[in-house]
Amino acid sequence: MHATLCAVRDHPHVNPFDFRGRLQRAGAALLVAGADALLISHLPNLRYLSGLEATAGSGLLTGDGRLFLLVDPRYEAAAAARAEEVGPDLVHPVATADVSASTWLASRCASDGIGRVALESRVLTLHAARLIEQALAAVGWSGALIDQPLDIVEHARRVKDAVELALLREGGARLSEAARGILADGVARVGRTELEVAADIDARVRAVGFSRAAFDTIVASGPRSAFPHARPTDRRLEAGEVVVLDFGGVYGGYCVDLTRTVCLGLPSAEVDRQYHAVRLAQQAGIAAVRPGTTPADVDRAARQVLEAAGLGETFGHGTGHGLGLEVHEAPRLARPRPEDAAQPPLEAGVVCTIEPGAYVTGRAGIRIEDDVVVTAYGHEQITDVPLGWPTAH
Amino acid sequence: MHATLCAVRDHPHVNPFDFRGRLQRAGAALLVAGADALLISHLPNLRYLSGLEATAGSGLLTGDGRLFLLVDPRYEAAAAARAEEVGPDLVHPVATADVSASTWLASRCASDGIGRVALESRVLTLHAARLIEQALAAVGWSGALIDQPLDIVEHARRVKDAVELALLREGGARLSEAARGILADGVARVGRTELEVAADIDARVRAVGFSRAAFDTIVASGPRSAFPHARPTDRRLEAGEVVVLDFGGVYGGYCVDLTRTVCLGLPSAEVDRQYHAVRLAQQAGIAAVRPGTTPADVDRAARQVLEAAGLGETFGHGTGHGLGLEVHEAPRLARPRPEDAAQPPLEAGVVCTIEPGAYVTGRAGIRIEDDVVVTAYGHEQITDVPLGWPTAH
Repeated sequence: MHATLCAVRDHPHVNPFDFRGRLQRAGAALLVAGADALLISHLPNLRYLSGLEATAGSGLLTGDGRLFLLVDPRYEAAAAARAEEVGPDLVHPVATADVSASTWLASRCASDGIGRVALESRVLTLHAARLIEQALAAVGWSGALIDQPLDIVEHARRVKDAVELALLREGGARLSEAARGILADGVARVGRTELEVAADIDARVRAVGFSRAAFDTIVASGPRSAFPHARPTDRRLEAGEVVVLDFGGVYGGYCVDLTRTVCLGLPSAEVDRQYHAVRLAQQAGIAAVRPGTTPADVDRAARQVLEAAGLGETFGHGTGHGLGLEVHEAPRLARPRPEDAAQPPLEAGVVCTIEPGAYVTGRAGIRIEDDVVVTAYGHEQITDVPLGWPTAH
Repeated sequence: MHATLCAVRDHPHVNPFDFRGRLQRAGAALLVAGADALLISHLPNLRYLSGLEATAGSGLLTGDGRLFLLVDPRYEAAAAARAEEVGPDLVHPVATADVSASTWLASRCASDGIGRVALESRVLTLHAARLIEQALAAVGWSGALIDQPLDIVEHARRVKDAVELALLREGGARLSEAARGILADGVARVGRTELEVAADIDARVRAVGFSRAAFDTIVASGPRSAFPHARPTDRRLEAGEVVVLDFGGVYGGYCVDLTRTVCLGLPSAEVDRQYHAVRLAQQAGIAAVRPGTTPADVDRAARQVLEAAGLGETFGHGTGHGLGLEVHEAPRLARPRPEDAAQPPLEAGVVCTIEPGAYVTGRAGIRIEDDVVVTAYGHEQITDVPLGWPTAH
């Protein structure tokens, strides 16, 4: 077991994350981007910077790396604990029971002469933005709000440090252990409902040490397998059908994610061909993962294989996504969208899924997903699970 | 079993929800509020109006009750199925793979002469709002965006119809069944970790027929019970401790929610007094639920009991929240916040939790939660679970 991981396990009260370094680097990045402060609305960003786990709240990060944690009464004690651990010079709890977050923000901006405040506009709601604008106007603030997304913390979160990688590797190993059991024990079997299969998968994910599922488990059988994001129903699995099993777990706060598609009997020649095209596409996607490659390059590598097999039209989603505190985070390995800025190339420490699929409406959908870490010279696959597909007939 | 519920169960492909009526009523409410169209960003609202279950997408509702479903390739087939079921005169799928949602919206507003477009600004992000503004400017649109929240669909969702009530009652009965087993079998017992207890609870919630947990189960033991929203950890339960168990399930899409606080041995006199104050506060809250009472009145009824016991300061959250497609929806039974508009009084068909608590930092937290339906003359409690508290010593 990795040494840092031992530290995490054996001393659960010694938090191994470098919150002080994260705060200071994020503050510096803010200044470089031309802002004096960042209003943090995205809760995983707040957790990354301070360790605060909350379902509501916000933060104000200043260029010198100080973070004001604005929390309601439910999280006052937790915010105080974060200040104590990270250091009361950097983390400052603010109780929003006494003053609304927008009023506090406005008075702070006015009193400290904060001139340019960046907003996390991908997450901040329009309504909350309006309340902030009104509060700032009420105190006569003459600064500027930056509403173009700067993605300061998202960018920092892309590259994982040694502690994060140790947790993700351990998560990958444990999810693989659960997946091997799920395949070997025939959890997806004729006569069970999709919901029963999902419940069994979820129990097994918990049993190998995950604190919870990383997302709602997908069990999609027969024609429903052609819906890439189907929710499990009370439909019973039938002989000869394809079943997509997509599940994940949260280990030490970090998410891992895996998909296998099984066949309850021998597949038709058409479905077998579809399966092997997806398998080759996934291998091509994984092989393309290395520092310097762009996320779009990886997507193209997988997509070209499916296009060559005549299945390009059946692959409607992206090839993969980053993994970390969120199960979907940067980078986005997909065809570029016109509204998005270009993404930087991959670099060592990025962790992502590779999960091409082919979905033929009314017939069958296939998806295969594994998790990989970008290393100094290439990649390391952190999930290890047999394919679960019947041998070709 | 309720007749409508039988219909839901035995004919899973006959959707019993009155989507056409919902669309037409929401369209009419929109016109009354002075808007020509509503851009729907809140996914539970999209589901309420059309039955579409998606993790991404948006909708445009027009005053005549037509709904355009803007979806990415993952949900194209599902959107087409909704149009077929609800009626292609009312539901119109739009593929955002071909044109971005904001570009489509702008061209539609221009071509159809839509003058006033309301936004769901509590959910729409500032970034998405900016993209919409830019797209509208690009087509030379001269209308107005309404960014004050109108809460058109949220308001419609407050009062449940007979099918929704049948699902919520059945959910309440099943969650109670699971809870009685959890208490009777001593799922929270000395030596187990909070995470083990949570996994056991989740498996039991699934076993009684829920499709999934309604939220991450809370198991908070000993001093951690004083954190109202603690996540389960690997802390082991010890003799004499208080443990808060808060869990819920989704049945037929509708959420139910329950909390019991147990003591692993005989409580101290102080904790016992704290428990009975919370119990009396919950009884007072439930007793206050009837048509015509405001949500703030219900909160006050429960809060006054805790204040009279000297525990007012230890009750930092609200007394309850609405239940439905979301586990937290309108109404909000809490002290009014200055930034919120006054909420309407309760009316028959509203479903909510009643869950006061008292949290003494460093010592113990207590919460008791049940679910109630507002009836024509009072209320009906839809959860039925013994208290799980040791008899007083």
